[in-house]
Amino acid sequence: MARVFSSINGSANLLTSVRCSYSTCYRPMVVEMGRDQSYRASIESEIEAHLKKVISIKPPESVFEPMHYLTFATPKSTAPALCVAACELVGGERAEALAAASAIHLMHVATYTHQHMHGSGTKPGPTIDHKFGPNIELLMGDGIMPFAIELLAKAMSPARENSDKILRVITEVTRAVGLQGLLEGQFRAVEWTQSGNGDEEMLEYVCKKKEGEIHACGAACGAILGDGNDEEVESLRNYGLYVGTIQGMINGVGRNNYNNRMEELRISAMKELQTRFKGKKVRPIASLIEESFVPPSQSNLL
Amino acid sequence: MARVFSSINGSANLLTSVRCSYSTCYRPMVVEMGRDQSYRASIESEIEAHLKKVISIKPPESVFEPMHYLTFATPKSTAPALCVAACELVGGERAEALAAASAIHLMHVATYTHQHMHGSGTKPGPTIDHKFGPNIELLMGDGIMPFAIELLAKAMSPARENSDKILRVITEVTRAVGLQGLLEGQFRAVEWTQSGNGDEEMLEYVCKKKEGEIHACGAACGAILGDGNDEEVESLRNYGLYVGTIQGMINGVGRNNYNNRMEELRISAMKELQTRFKGKKVRPIASLIEESFVPPSQSNLL
Repeated sequence: MARVFSSINGSANLLTSVRCSYSTCYRPMVVEMGRDQSYRASIESEIEAHLKKVISIKPPESVFEPMHYLTFATPKSTAPALCVAACELVGGERAEALAAASAIHLMHVATYTHQHMHGSGTKPGPTIDHKFGPNIELLMGDGIMPFAIELLAKAMSPARENSDKILRVITEVTRAVGLQGLLEGQFRAVEWTQSGNGDEEMLEYVCKKKEGEIHACGAACGAILGDGNDEEVESLRNYGLYVGTIQGMINGVGRNNYNNRMEELRISAMKELQTRFKGKKVRPIASLIEESFVPPSQSNLL
Repeated sequence: MARVFSSINGSANLLTSVRCSYSTCYRPMVVEMGRDQSYRASIESEIEAHLKKVISIKPPESVFEPMHYLTFATPKSTAPALCVAACELVGGERAEALAAASAIHLMHVATYTHQHMHGSGTKPGPTIDHKFGPNIELLMGDGIMPFAIELLAKAMSPARENSDKILRVITEVTRAVGLQGLLEGQFRAVEWTQSGNGDEEMLEYVCKKKEGEIHACGAACGAILGDGNDEEVESLRNYGLYVGTIQGMINGVGRNNYNNRMEELRISAMKELQTRFKGKKVRPIASLIEESFVPPSQSNLL
């Protein structure tokens, strides 16, 4: 098995002291990272506009109507916005990352739709209200995935000078959602629930696979599309892996149970930005994630 | 709705006279097309070897073992072999088409695996014997699809001079299995079964979507990878559409119910080869399909 992060300490009471310790060590970065909701909102609005352009409700309506509904009703992951933010951080234009960010959202929609069907082994997975039966859910998940890749492949410029970058991005996305990425996470989630032993190390591994790798992929793809160099791509991949893993853990236990293991991961994430992007505007990309991590009762700490 | 082929005549009794009429009109092609099982067998053996190389059973075994099993246990479609044969027909090397043919087989495996879960609306779909539960089936289908695309994306040559061709092929494959291709066929199959009216025109449309378009894609991808010109690509796409549609109809009613509508489609398919590839060795590509069409009791007609 690949490297497993060390165990989680589940105590929510550690939050304040851990955050104080974090503030002491990384105060300059905390100042840099204040919330900037409008940045995330502006990115998500552009991704949504892009998706609305490419997923019109056209014949056959029985196919495109549920696809349209599920695409916009599924709760958003931060991975697509991270893709756009990474592109901008390395100096790229937002428009260069919109197709990839949309494809990453669609992959999330496809897996979210199917996840409802298998849950975590014993209980049904997350769901959204809709009128479609399980057959449509199954078919939709199957259909949205190739549509996402087609969207990416069609992002080749008319002069075809970006074919290599597009192929790298396709490889990143398919690997992140595939059998050694998100799908492995879903397998492990089923095993973890069935085992019933509450192994926290395995739970973190599941979060790394299910959420960490798609965030890592989003950030790496943004950097590739924005013409970042190899070090920037890898550093943003690491950043995405840390923040996605924390995101997965928070999705599991709730923001009010933010704990010191999550804080360790967050410190590692910030180090990636500080080390590789010294002097660059890291506040926007950090702000995308920060707001999800802090429990509402502690939000004045940011 | 896109063009719908005209209705099917379900009478098996017409077979002999239709085939005689066919022999009269297209005798030279019949002579050209005699069975050549070793051609199909040799292609499929190379595709299988390619797949065995890329899908070894490695950690995590709980993921790769079922993937390995399903990949090799799922009944073969002729679409992957058609991809290789089309590549060779336009003058390409077999090796150039093996990744695409393998990816097309994997897409077939993914949809076949899920098809068992939804069937055609009221009854379970085709299945193969295995020890895996529905959760594994669902996750496998989801995981095999991105793996297939990753395989294609990685077929980029080290010098990257074939990136544009690979992107074209990715677009072809994702479109063929997506919401306006195979998936639409699966939607229509569910509707068709639920309607219970036995509309033969709709049944043919379902076969065109479910089997025709993936065969069309296979043939077109082979021609693209073998550096065929645009006319060759489109002609082989049409050929694949005809023969895949017939294949779908035969899968539904059995070889002993080969009928005159199938024969009409077969004649159209042969015309594509005769017109565009006059003087070229069309026998191998025709032989791939021919053997599936003829009822065992009539096989001496070939």
